[in-house]
Amino acid sequence: MRYFSDNAAPVHPKIMQAIADANFVDTAYDGDALSQRLDAAFSDLFERDVAALWVSTGTAANCLALASLALPHQGVICHREAHIEVDECGAPGFYTGGAKLMLVDGDGAKISPQTVTDLLSTIRPDVHQVQAAAVSITNATEYGLVYRPDEVAALGALCRDRKLALHMDGARFGNAIATLGCSPADVTWRAGVNVLSFGFAKNGGMNAEALIYFDPALADAARYRRKRAGHLLSKGRFLAAQLLAFLEGDLWIDNARTANAAARIIAEAAPERLLHSVEANEIFIRLSAIEAAALRSQGFDFYDWGEGAARLVTSWHHRDADAAPLAKAIAAL
Amino acid sequence: MRYFSDNAAPVHPKIMQAIADANFVDTAYDGDALSQRLDAAFSDLFERDVAALWVSTGTAANCLALASLALPHQGVICHREAHIEVDECGAPGFYTGGAKLMLVDGDGAKISPQTVTDLLSTIRPDVHQVQAAAVSITNATEYGLVYRPDEVAALGALCRDRKLALHMDGARFGNAIATLGCSPADVTWRAGVNVLSFGFAKNGGMNAEALIYFDPALADAARYRRKRAGHLLSKGRFLAAQLLAFLEGDLWIDNARTANAAARIIAEAAPERLLHSVEANEIFIRLSAIEAAALRSQGFDFYDWGEGAARLVTSWHHRDADAAPLAKAIAAL
Amino acid sequence: MRYFSDNAAPVHPKIMQAIADANFVDTAYDGDALSQRLDAAFSDLFERDVAALWVSTGTAANCLALASLALPHQGVICHREAHIEVDECGAPGFYTGGAKLMLVDGDGAKISPQTVTDLLSTIRPDVHQVQAAAVSITNATEYGLVYRPDEVAALGALCRDRKLALHMDGARFGNAIATLGCSPADVTWRAGVNVLSFGFAKNGGMNAEALIYFDPALADAARYRRKRAGHLLSKGRFLAAQLLAFLEGDLWIDNARTANAAARIIAEAAPERLLHSVEANEIFIRLSAIEAAALRSQGFDFYDWGEGAARLVTSWHHRDADAAPLAKAIAAL
Amino acid sequence: MRYFSDNAAPVHPKIMQAIADANFVDTAYDGDALSQRLDAAFSDLFERDVAALWVSTGTAANCLALASLALPHQGVICHREAHIEVDECGAPGFYTGGAKLMLVDGDGAKISPQTVTDLLSTIRPDVHQVQAAAVSITNATEYGLVYRPDEVAALGALCRDRKLALHMDGARFGNAIATLGCSPADVTWRAGVNVLSFGFAKNGGMNAEALIYFDPALADAARYRRKRAGHLLSKGRFLAAQLLAFLEGDLWIDNARTANAAARIIAEAAPERLLHSVEANEIFIRLSAIEAAALRSQGFDFYDWGEGAARLVTSWHHRDADAAPLAKAIAAL
Repeated sequence: MRYFSDNAAPVHPKIMQAIADANFVDTAYDGDALSQRLDAAFSDLFERDVAALWVSTGTAANCLALASLALPHQGVICHREAHIEVDECGAPGFYTGGAKLMLVDGDGAKISPQTVTDLLSTIRPDVHQVQAAAVSITNATEYGLVYRPDEVAALGALCRDRKLALHMDGARFGNAIATLGCSPADVTWRAGVNVLSFGFAKNGGMNAEALIYFDPALADAARYRRKRAGHLLSKGRFLAAQLLAFLEGDLWIDNARTANAAARIIAEAAPERLLHSVEANEIFIRLSAIEAAALRSQGFDFYDWGEGAARLVTSWHHRDADAAPLAKAIAAL
Repeated sequence: MRYFSDNAAPVHPKIMQAIADANFVDTAYDGDALSQRLDAAFSDLFERDVAALWVSTGTAANCLALASLALPHQGVICHREAHIEVDECGAPGFYTGGAKLMLVDGDGAKISPQTVTDLLSTIRPDVHQVQAAAVSITNATEYGLVYRPDEVAALGALCRDRKLALHMDGARFGNAIATLGCSPADVTWRAGVNVLSFGFAKNGGMNAEALIYFDPALADAARYRRKRAGHLLSKGRFLAAQLLAFLEGDLWIDNARTANAAARIIAEAAPERLLHSVEANEIFIRLSAIEAAALRSQGFDFYDWGEGAARLVTSWHHRDADAAPLAKAIAAL
Repeated sequence: MRYFSDNAAPVHPKIMQAIADANFVDTAYDGDALSQRLDAAFSDLFERDVAALWVSTGTAANCLALASLALPHQGVICHREAHIEVDECGAPGFYTGGAKLMLVDGDGAKISPQTVTDLLSTIRPDVHQVQAAAVSITNATEYGLVYRPDEVAALGALCRDRKLALHMDGARFGNAIATLGCSPADVTWRAGVNVLSFGFAKNGGMNAEALIYFDPALADAARYRRKRAGHLLSKGRFLAAQLLAFLEGDLWIDNARTANAAARIIAEAAPERLLHSVEANEIFIRLSAIEAAALRSQGFDFYDWGEGAARLVTSWHHRDADAAPLAKAIAAL
Repeated sequence: MRYFSDNAAPVHPKIMQAIADANFVDTAYDGDALSQRLDAAFSDLFERDVAALWVSTGTAANCLALASLALPHQGVICHREAHIEVDECGAPGFYTGGAKLMLVDGDGAKISPQTVTDLLSTIRPDVHQVQAAAVSITNATEYGLVYRPDEVAALGALCRDRKLALHMDGARFGNAIATLGCSPADVTWRAGVNVLSFGFAKNGGMNAEALIYFDPALADAARYRRKRAGHLLSKGRFLAAQLLAFLEGDLWIDNARTANAAARIIAEAAPERLLHSVEANEIFIRLSAIEAAALRSQGFDFYDWGEGAARLVTSWHHRDADAAPLAKAIAAL
């Protein structure tokens, strides 16, 4: 069983079906009936008017969002291990026209108001230095930690106070909500988030992410930027179909719960090995090379995470029954 | 029946099947077995070593290509009505970092060596003016005309002579080859083309285009640029699967022949109305507002093309039996 | 005597003196007392609050202005022979992040509301096409014609109506005002201009131009962009000193009058040769190769302007007594 | 006496004279006789063929250099306190089209091969991460330390080995050479430096820096980029005149020696206060708020450098006789 990443997991059958069903909708780009339903569907979910744009990747979602929030000569504060800093090949610089990522530290890739305040205090307010325009956080974080609504709200308040916008990279937003049990609104706009990259590809989708603007006016330019970036697919209906299928019947939260449950089972098998609290669907454990080899010989695959550690990621496709053997194998090491 | 655009046509069942079959390939990005087969598959088709990258849109393919060929301070010569100039919201400027499109005229959106030579003669070779670095042509053109191998070769020779690279936007490359009956190599690298945007979305695909580098070394940077543009899908296997399914059994050329045949049937119904020779799957006809309304009342949909004209586009989904009633209706006007 | 261009003419002695006098002002960038006086000095001249930034070149002034007015995915309407299009090596694309120059025609490089309206009517208001955000005009134009206040106001009204910003490239603004005899305010902000590149280098300066924001709030970002473009000179006092010396005692208008007068003398010598009305300090005349050689043999230098034509440019350094011999020589041809 | 920064110091009288002398050279841009002599003059100095471009600021020189060495999707390794990272408002991102500065630490803003190797080891060689293309060092550093030829050569060897280019920000290159006593060639191209920003503005110039390409072929694109950035001044002769006057009679090294000598005098007055070794013309000392006030009350001005510290910078204008009273005042604290 493969625990490399949720981003390679199979597409959920319901999503596959929705894609198949969308085939004979015959209007291009986002003019089709499915795409036209997105704003309303996500407005329902978020309990307020939002603008919702489909895009094919989390990188596109994140960077279109950042381009909405920071001018080329400005900066975006994020964690040193944020996906936008570490794993997007400089895409933020491309989309924003050269804006600077300003890095802060924090356990588990989590940002606190204090780290942001500290960083801001090092910036001279003159034209020689890049001034911050936004903060970007990831929920769940790159290490599988979850920001609670009050934690986001504290950052949101700081941002409002310092005239910074707040972006949330929700590549695993479903996993976060599955853990929090709150309304999606509580941890986003009610807490001060301006734009959300709402991920579905890691949650059983094929290639659709939703870019959510809580201030719909901000989305006007983003629609042009999306086209200009080559992200306005001619058969966008297939992306819209995925998103709608996720929202209908709560598939998005069900899938996330399944993934989180599998992660918990594995985590509980080896609490003393955990490098981070397991709050979503990622497990980081201490694991020697010999132990890693032992697990692999039993058919479990995963990433080495530097020396002596490993990352395992669960997805909707890892049912409890799948996780149990891995949990047992880890416990038996 | 809808004749708006091939870019909204249904996905061919074989492509849908290939997508479904790719679901349980569990490796991310382009590391999967399907993506890894692309270079070889396209090298076979083109009778030489090529590098083949999947991307989701023609705009991304075109603009990644241009960014490989022109530095930010340089220019790309293209037709005044080229897709990259008219319909991509400035994407070439985004991808190249501000390179300039230098426009030439020509019937049916076709470029001749003479128009290129004339344009070059207006550029002073000093640092005050943008110097051309590449030529981009579209085959079939935006008006459905087809460049023959000798026509491309004449441009290719000029480009070699003037140290310009040559890009071909092949959004409807299949349609061009279906008409030409030549080897894909003859009208591309053998004629001097350096990079090809090989379109499949308009030819029955869902969301996959192939970016073909005839000099594979040029593709190294393009792989980084693709990621940086947010176009490296995590489940890229679904794009690779489409491309491979198109190549296997010649589906790509079969679909293009079907579309072209339908276009011919319609064109032959009204030769005196044709604004351009119908050499691929687009028909531009004189059509008064009253005539347009008459056709629409019979269930045929299409774009008005300015006043007194219309554009009809056929696709793999328009069988001869579908085209016949439209042909008849036009003839009866 | 050289009539190549006013941009290579000597620096006026008063400007040289002002530079020398500024040497022992010891504060960096634009923090010195001279730079700090610019806003007030130009506000006086323009009869309203403006923000005035020094920069070293007209290209920097123009492109910082355009970057203030157009987002990367937008466009700027200008004349096909505008300096920003023809002679700045794509600098607008660099500064704006890839915005598109949208070209219109017009005699003498002059734009009319009709040409702008016509161009706007060709742009579909959808995300596939670049939408115009601004208009840029040059006064005096690249052919030495002058926009009158009512002409600018007509463009200004159109811009306001269509939500476009209006930029004026005033590389030869002094020459225009010398001809118009109006207040600088009349042909700029009172007529709807938002930002002015106010040129001094062609008017006897060394390397200082003023970028004038009629809405000072727009200048905030421009100050960062100027630094980011490497245009915040550490000894900016030498640029400020030039600008202040030009304003004090009306040197800027005196110099422009001198240049215009010389141009008039030359123009009057050969009215039948004129290709454009001579309204500032540029003279475009019909001139055969033989005639050109004849003039050159008498010590007059100038640019050939294509075949059978020549461009002569006067500057503050061409006194009437200098122009007379050239006028006589042309009349004698 | 002001010790804020050498970048605001007066222009040396010989430079002022050279500027005045250049006034009646009447050719625009870099076509004048003075500009045309630069390549030869700097080739002499560096004992090999170089291409030398004048620009107005160090930021422009640095960022044109970086744009020559790194593609938009690549990175440049520099010190965390390098001027390009801290004090240029993101200009490297602007000029390179979004390339990333990759930061390393080191005392006195100095980079060692080990820190570069360590950083490189953290970059996965895949398309998800920005790959380094160049290293940029500052000599003398932002803290007034000087790289010796063997230190640069060690970095140069590493760069060659790892296929990285090497840039030297020589804003205070004269001060470094004055200390080293070596040939400029020894610490640049002989040690593996590809491009040098050779600063003159901090060394008694008005507004001229030289961008030196040790591989002249690299300069071709830089000439276009300079124009495109608005840095091709129409009266470039005034910049060329400054550079030539610096080289003639070794003014550049004399000025630097004067500045360094003044710094040494001050440093020797308070060795126990020094935060960094004084190897060029900058002195960083421990200084309490009370002590700072005491110095200021005696007429000495300087920057506070965080709490309890101060930065003093000397220039050609601080003769030994000027430095002595300050040295005495510090010693007396």
